Parts: sequence; C-alpha cells; structure tokens
Amino acid sequence: MSDHSSEPVGPVEAYEPPYYVAVFTAVRTESRRGYSETNARMEDLVKDIPGYLGMDHAQTPGGLGITVGYFRDAEALTEWRSNAEHRGAQRRGRDEWYRSYTLHVAKVERSHGFVRERGPAAG
Amino acid sequence: MSDHSSEPVGPVEAYEPPYYVAVFTAVRTESRRGYSETNARMEDLVKDIPGYLGMDHAQTPGGLGITVGYFRDAEALTEWRSNAEHRGAQRRGRDEWYRSYTLHVAKVERSHGFVRERGPAAG
Repeated sequence: MSDHSSEPVGPVEAYEPPYYVAVFTAVRTESRRGYSETNARMEDLVKDIPGYLGMDHAQTPGGLGITVGYFRDAEALTEWRSNAEHRGAQRRGRDEWYRSYTLHVAKVERSHGFVRERGPAAG
Repeated sequence: MSDHSSEPVGPVEAYEPPYYVAVFTAVRTESRRGYSETNARMEDLVKDIPGYLGMDHAQTPGGLGITVGYFRDAEALTEWRSNAEHRGAQRRGRDEWYRSYTLHVAKVERSHGFVRERGPAAG
C-alpha cells in the first residue's frame, strides 16, 4: 500500500485461475502520521500469509490510490482479514488516514498477461 | 483509463454482489501518440454497455497504472470485450503503448465501503 514510486515496476503476472483479488480503492485525508510505517509493516506481514501471491499499487498524486492484493484462495484472505495487527491498522485508517474507501473481494475466473518484445515503441 | 488527475476523485462505491471487476494493471512505453484520445474514446464507449457500473483509475507517475472496471454481469463484460473499436484499441496498446500488462477478470463475492464523517483528520 506504499507509493512504490522508487521501486522497479511491473504488474503482478496472471496466475492460473481460480484465485482471489482484493481491490482496495481509497482517497486519503491530509493526515500522514504513521501511515508509511504502518504500510511497510503491513507489506511485510502479508507476505507471511500462506497463499499470498503478490500486490499491485498505483497512486495518482493528490487523488485516488488503488491497491490490489492477490491470494490463492478464500482461506488466505480470511487469515489476512482476521490478523490482529492488520485489524488495528484498518481501524487507524478509518480514524485518521482515509477520507473514503471501497473494498471489493472477488474470485478470478479469467486472466492473461502481455510482455512486449523489443521493438521501436519500447523506447 | 486516463489519468483523471484533474477530476474530482472518489472511489466507485460498493455494489451489491455479485458483480464483476476487470482489473487491468500496466506499465507504459514512452510512446504517447494517440493514447489520450483513444482512452477518452474508450471511456465514452464503455458507458454505452448495458451493465457497465463504473471505473476507477490510478497512475503512479512513471510507474504502474491500474484501471478497474465494474460490470453487473458476465454478459456486460463479454459485450465490452467483443466491441470492435475496443479490440482495435487493445491491438494498438500491444503494438505501441504498453510495455507489459495483466488483466484479471473476477466475480465479486463481498464488498463494503467507508466514507468518513467530519472530524479533525479530515483536514
């Protein structure tokens, strides 16, 4: 859920369905106290969940942030959702960091990926 | 799929499941020729699809872009996927605009939203 702007980027690749996506779309408040630290901690913590597959994040400056978490099955999501430290972070998000958000939890039925070959447009 | 950075922001709200999300995650090439115009045209075009519910987009500058389209049912997605003009735009995306992308099509099983009440953190 961090900005990732200094990290090498590339979308999480398509897995073989079925798997789960948790799509979290949010607009932030002005409050940034503790946000980055908590984000970093959550990114570490989620990696310990069996069945966690990866995460994509994009953030329009001053605008919408979208985080997509990928999980092998519903059990992995349930474990992440019921993690006590994660629940504490969610509470703090509602109290301080988010103006509004939506969460969509969905089972992937179809996926595919594309990686371009070297060509003039690759720049 | 445009940057939306000058538009008022707020995530698409939670709908009553089931509905579908199409999660498109992409890294762009340097090529921008025709991209904005095609994006704007696609955003207009998708609104004519019966069952289209909305779209969220976030773009990390120089990094990952995530577009999430929401659709009431699989039929709406099929109609959008088979739209001739949309298919042409997808071809052009592979030829010119995208270095890599992934598409995940998923059926939403659970969703919820949050909008903060006025408070000190709202700034």
